[in-house]
Amino acid sequence: MPSSPIRKLAPLAREAKKQGVKVYHLNIGQPDLPTPPKALEALKHVDRTTLEYSPSEGYASLREKLTGYYKRYGIDITPDEIIVTCGGSEAILLGLLTCLDPGDEIIMVEPGYANYISFAKTARITVKTVTARIEDGFALPPVDAFEKAITPRTKAILLCNPSNPTGYVYTAEELQQIKEIVVKHDLFLFSDEVYREFVYNGKPYLSAMSLGIPEHVVMIDSVSKRYSECGIRIGMLVTHNKEVHDTVMKFCQARLSPPLLGQIVAEASIEGTQDYAKACFDEYKARRDFFIKGLNEIPGVYSPMPEGAFYTVASLPVADAEDFCRWLLTDFRLDGETVMMAPAAGFYSTPGLGKNQVRMAYVLKIEDLAKALKVLRAALEAYNK
Amino acid sequence: MPSSPIRKLAPLAREAKKQGVKVYHLNIGQPDLPTPPKALEALKHVDRTTLEYSPSEGYASLREKLTGYYKRYGIDITPDEIIVTCGGSEAILLGLLTCLDPGDEIIMVEPGYANYISFAKTARITVKTVTARIEDGFALPPVDAFEKAITPRTKAILLCNPSNPTGYVYTAEELQQIKEIVVKHDLFLFSDEVYREFVYNGKPYLSAMSLGIPEHVVMIDSVSKRYSECGIRIGMLVTHNKEVHDTVMKFCQARLSPPLLGQIVAEASIEGTQDYAKACFDEYKARRDFFIKGLNEIPGVYSPMPEGAFYTVASLPVADAEDFCRWLLTDFRLDGETVMMAPAAGFYSTPGLGKNQVRMAYVLKIEDLAKALKVLRAALEAYNK
Repeated sequence: MPSSPIRKLAPLAREAKKQGVKVYHLNIGQPDLPTPPKALEALKHVDRTTLEYSPSEGYASLREKLTGYYKRYGIDITPDEIIVTCGGSEAILLGLLTCLDPGDEIIMVEPGYANYISFAKTARITVKTVTARIEDGFALPPVDAFEKAITPRTKAILLCNPSNPTGYVYTAEELQQIKEIVVKHDLFLFSDEVYREFVYNGKPYLSAMSLGIPEHVVMIDSVSKRYSECGIRIGMLVTHNKEVHDTVMKFCQARLSPPLLGQIVAEASIEGTQDYAKACFDEYKARRDFFIKGLNEIPGVYSPMPEGAFYTVASLPVADAEDFCRWLLTDFRLDGETVMMAPAAGFYSTPGLGKNQVRMAYVLKIEDLAKALKVLRAALEAYNK
Repeated sequence: MPSSPIRKLAPLAREAKKQGVKVYHLNIGQPDLPTPPKALEALKHVDRTTLEYSPSEGYASLREKLTGYYKRYGIDITPDEIIVTCGGSEAILLGLLTCLDPGDEIIMVEPGYANYISFAKTARITVKTVTARIEDGFALPPVDAFEKAITPRTKAILLCNPSNPTGYVYTAEELQQIKEIVVKHDLFLFSDEVYREFVYNGKPYLSAMSLGIPEHVVMIDSVSKRYSECGIRIGMLVTHNKEVHDTVMKFCQARLSPPLLGQIVAEASIEGTQDYAKACFDEYKARRDFFIKGLNEIPGVYSPMPEGAFYTVASLPVADAEDFCRWLLTDFRLDGETVMMAPAAGFYSTPGLGKNQVRMAYVLKIEDLAKALKVLRAALEAYNK
């Protein structure tokens, strides 16, 4: 089991804070925006006397409301096709355990969400990666690369759209390419769509559920990011594939039920929160515009313009971004402040890739992002002296 | 992945209820007792604006309070030796994934908690069982049986104490025997102690953590049963073994964090609830006394007197308890009422064992238990005609 590349530097950050240093956290996707007030309010009205097990598949009322939410995105499903999980994390793990045998292979795009690798390891699945390049703005790797990665043991492709860590949003043409590969080789397509809400290119979001290959698609979802409620651990696994659904349910029955209180909060978050969602969207979009522009103004720094989520992977004018990130925490301070970032190498499987890159999340207020940029600029100057 | 033996009959129960039949649920360990009011009250005072990720290991304040709780049971640990999990379920799964490789073997007692088998399958671990017999009141199987089950691939023994499904509480002598086997063969001892609170034999509870083999023991715990808050999904994995702890933590980092709101409720449940705990204990003890006596008064029914938890495995005067349980739901009604029980065969791994046994949970009020006994008596008469 590998250590989390995001959490590896955490002890150094704690140490810096102990010394009184202010640390700007660009390293983790913990949104600072508030949870919808009506969702918090729902907690005050829990009028149960016993906090009992919920159904293994999650409350019907929550799944019912989710179908309404998905309809807004052109995703047509029934409550019976939704399984509520303990965060998107559990949905991924159970999906992998269900669809792949040990030794089977799954193809992922690198740089990718590092914990996918952990879940694949847990399920004893082999991960093959195809590389998205910063020069291409982290677009989908060419079909050739997928074809080359496919072996008789390949059972699935996993796509995160919009992508964590790059913020890339796959185009309709790219998804069409993926669909063709999936059908040609009879694969499962795991589609992690937890950042669906945050697409800044003005185009309607295209879900893998809308590709017309219902038996192939397992959609991973979560309320964590869209309602700023990561802590409640409510995710979903959604599929039209009945056999997959029924097998995932066996795993779900073994673990009894998803978190009850989280379901209450999630259910209260879905309806009547359009204004909230709009405000969050506008805020993230403004931050993105500000932050990416600021990054690219620092000499030697390059970040593509991410069209979704709230991350970017940028290249820095340093040979070893991990050393630089470490040094930021241990040695560098500008007026008592420093910046924490996630070295991007941890998001690649191929050794040596991404060594000069970092992943950053713009989940801070614009004035803090401005200060973080100032610190980063000064730090790069000092480090390279 | 096997289907849950407890939940297999659920559709039949739903059907019966649709017809207006009152079903007494003796089949599932969902306590009907209230959650501590002060824990429910804590929910009303959640004054956060963002429900953010908690630490992967759980909040320090919760782990701190837990050490105080454990101290009352003579279990001496530090907060750093506790990892908060999504229910005891996750604690078991992560413990198995950490301590055993695929193909390794674990020894469990049958009849045992059926979901252990599911978690072992998830981790690709082979389960060997040693059989506890109803004639012995489900006491620990003889040491010989363990020795016979051990192979070079055996890495662990799992004990549930008090036992779900039998309610058996292992004696100091039996635990000593287990300790000797564990040390002799250098095994891990998984000790599921979630029913610690409910021991009715007047003797102090003896935890595996007190056996003097700190590097071997992985304790599984949960607040679900002791505070009637199964739905919040808060369990713990506790071990003095640093290597095990650190590896479990890697899995925990991958799934990010345990449920935030559950931790708030759990934390509020630990202190100032001694009166509550006493009342629950008294209630379960009274139910046990009433229910087991009533069971044994039904002709042909035999239940040992369980000394802990709130379950019993009883033998019935029927050849196929699963058929009987099914028939109760589909065909039998006494004044519009029937009873749901879990066929015990699902708690055995050895085919053919427990065919005339059922597992029952006495988590109903005494007046309902009385009615359930009346239904059961009448049903057995009718079924055997």
